[in-house]
Amino acid sequence: MDFFNCISLRTAQGLVADALSVSPTGVEEVDLIQALGRVVAEDISAGSDLPPFSRSTVDGYAVLSRDTFGAGEGVPVMLAVVGEVLMGQSAEYSVVPGQAVVIPTGGMLPAGADAVVMLEYTECSDNETLLVLKPVAPGENVVVKGEDIKAGTVFITAGSKLTAAEIGALAACGIAKVKVFGRLTVGVISTGDEVVAVDVVPVGGQVRDINSYTLGAMLAETDCQVRYYGIIKDNYEKLRQAIIKAVTETKLVLVSGGSSVGARDHTVRVIEELGQQRVMFHGLAVKPGKPTIFGMIGQVPVFGLPGHPVAAMTVCQSLVIPAVKKMHGLRTGKAGIQVLAKLTRNIASAPGRDDFLRVRLVWREGEYLAEPVLGKSGLISVMTQADGIVRISAESSGLYAGDVVNVEVMREA
Amino acid sequence: MDFFNCISLRTAQGLVADALSVSPTGVEEVDLIQALGRVVAEDISAGSDLPPFSRSTVDGYAVLSRDTFGAGEGVPVMLAVVGEVLMGQSAEYSVVPGQAVVIPTGGMLPAGADAVVMLEYTECSDNETLLVLKPVAPGENVVVKGEDIKAGTVFITAGSKLTAAEIGALAACGIAKVKVFGRLTVGVISTGDEVVAVDVVPVGGQVRDINSYTLGAMLAETDCQVRYYGIIKDNYEKLRQAIIKAVTETKLVLVSGGSSVGARDHTVRVIEELGQQRVMFHGLAVKPGKPTIFGMIGQVPVFGLPGHPVAAMTVCQSLVIPAVKKMHGLRTGKAGIQVLAKLTRNIASAPGRDDFLRVRLVWREGEYLAEPVLGKSGLISVMTQADGIVRISAESSGLYAGDVVNVEVMREA
Repeated sequence: MDFFNCISLRTAQGLVADALSVSPTGVEEVDLIQALGRVVAEDISAGSDLPPFSRSTVDGYAVLSRDTFGAGEGVPVMLAVVGEVLMGQSAEYSVVPGQAVVIPTGGMLPAGADAVVMLEYTECSDNETLLVLKPVAPGENVVVKGEDIKAGTVFITAGSKLTAAEIGALAACGIAKVKVFGRLTVGVISTGDEVVAVDVVPVGGQVRDINSYTLGAMLAETDCQVRYYGIIKDNYEKLRQAIIKAVTETKLVLVSGGSSVGARDHTVRVIEELGQQRVMFHGLAVKPGKPTIFGMIGQVPVFGLPGHPVAAMTVCQSLVIPAVKKMHGLRTGKAGIQVLAKLTRNIASAPGRDDFLRVRLVWREGEYLAEPVLGKSGLISVMTQADGIVRISAESSGLYAGDVVNVEVMREA
Repeated sequence: MDFFNCISLRTAQGLVADALSVSPTGVEEVDLIQALGRVVAEDISAGSDLPPFSRSTVDGYAVLSRDTFGAGEGVPVMLAVVGEVLMGQSAEYSVVPGQAVVIPTGGMLPAGADAVVMLEYTECSDNETLLVLKPVAPGENVVVKGEDIKAGTVFITAGSKLTAAEIGALAACGIAKVKVFGRLTVGVISTGDEVVAVDVVPVGGQVRDINSYTLGAMLAETDCQVRYYGIIKDNYEKLRQAIIKAVTETKLVLVSGGSSVGARDHTVRVIEELGQQRVMFHGLAVKPGKPTIFGMIGQVPVFGLPGHPVAAMTVCQSLVIPAVKKMHGLRTGKAGIQVLAKLTRNIASAPGRDDFLRVRLVWREGEYLAEPVLGKSGLISVMTQADGIVRISAESSGLYAGDVVNVEVMREA
């Protein structure tokens, strides 16, 4: 029996990624105002130059820079003020040598001028004669037409998750609608004879359904629509019906639990029967998270996750979320936020498996300390105290206090 | 004229915080399944012990630990197997010295037993006689009733923003509904004669409205409902009407621009007239972000932000977002995610003001490099490339290449 012929996390991630298709929900067009956090479906280029005209970055006088060469406090250059550029209006002047035009920050640079002298470096007592006290270089205090974004340049690439700044860049370029990948609908199923609903008082050895909530929340944080298929008893036919419904209505399915080998057998059998092929793996060299199953039913990936809440969350984070991101079309070159931190105590780890250690981050005297959040078998209360996760690779037999480790940050303030 | 008698960011943050009330939108009760990311409004304690019974953390045999003392490979202890605990059911047995009961991971520990021997350290050929090959200590492989969360213990405090793990802890405790603070509705107004809507092609010196989009997105990311009041010309009466509407319909108002001193005067005048008191400050010693205004109209804070998009975003991040978090009831003891990074070039900064430097984070050979994202007056394209912000305090006259700096992380992958 090769049930626990476990494969490594890296191998599992590769198998999952290869099995998935990008954006099974297709592409939709959304208004820019609704586009925050959406993943763009195509490269976006500017239709025209940004800025569309050369503009001043300061309040001052538009001039020909050559006119100012040699100017100084003791040897001011004298220019004739011939007009004023008004905010938001075309510059009607054409500046010729010996002339200057009043210009506000953001104002359009008049023809002929190639620089702006800041107000602070001028004197102008009569609105007609300007004394320039400092020279300007060509282009100084000016943003040239197209300097920000040139017409035709791709400035946002397919697979970017739009940030507030990128929304601003799209607005600047007049792009009022954006093509984005559709968001996944995912199905969550809890299993186990011992599992009862949250509003039920457990009797005997029963426990409340935690995984529907934690897994649902993690998927919601990853921009999925979550559908809940309730708690299914350890019964082959009932599980089969629930999985048929879930793979019909959603694009990715999670089945957590049950805690018995028999229940896990049910999950494997249903996936293999409905998918008409063997599951791709059963058993992951990850602690916590060993009893993990993965297979495809048609185009729908189905994950069997451990029943233990901490193990289920760990596998969801390291295996399911990357799958969701790929299906969302997200370009995944950029890793999550990592911080370096000094481990506060020794941690043993069995070689041959990836261990995921939850830690609390404490900022002290200019560095982070990573305090392992310990507790028997991942108590739930303990799990809530973690700020991040340290991965102890399969090659390592543990870490020492004082070691500097990479912490993948899970939460922000 | 004390217009640009600038105050420090820290002073400004203090004035704003003191002026605000927490949760002007009150408290609401939400289903646990909808509670992710909400800020809890009261301390939450467990109604009963978690786990509600002592349970095994492994597959094995429930025993009296004393019976196993001295056991070893060569000197097994022999016990009588008297039954089996089934998953999710009460343990009907009372174990007495000399006895053992089969128990699955998560199973309820039977009365009398105080430890569990793992399957791996036993032999049992006939289902009746168990050989224990290794001793267990009292409590070994057992989570005791109430060990995770004791009845009556506060395990989530008011002001927490609920994470997936906390949602799980609430589920475990049978808390199906949660009291949370209401989310703010905020109003966004753009001003400026030169500003046109995104779908308009600018002519002359016009520019498109960027701030409604960037500020709206930043507020949406901070869990606000955003209402947009459009682009208002530099006209006192029109601005007054827009602000009256916004302060009536929302709990916090942002007015960005205009770029002229005259337009800023309008904003100050409207706030002072409607609020019947002086603005609390006008001018911030922050670069970029100097022309910032703050005042109260009744209970509604009104921020006048710079017209320049990068400056408006900087002030929104450092002044408005903290205000929103306080109004959301968020306990703000925990700072945002910071990483230490090595600056890649010298950066000059004028003493006497806080400079905010946008940087790109590059992970190289086990450390982050912070590459300043430079560009004239904060080009929009450049702004989209930043991963985080370095604050150069008012006391500093700059930073050197190789300096290790704190980067406040703005975005995740």
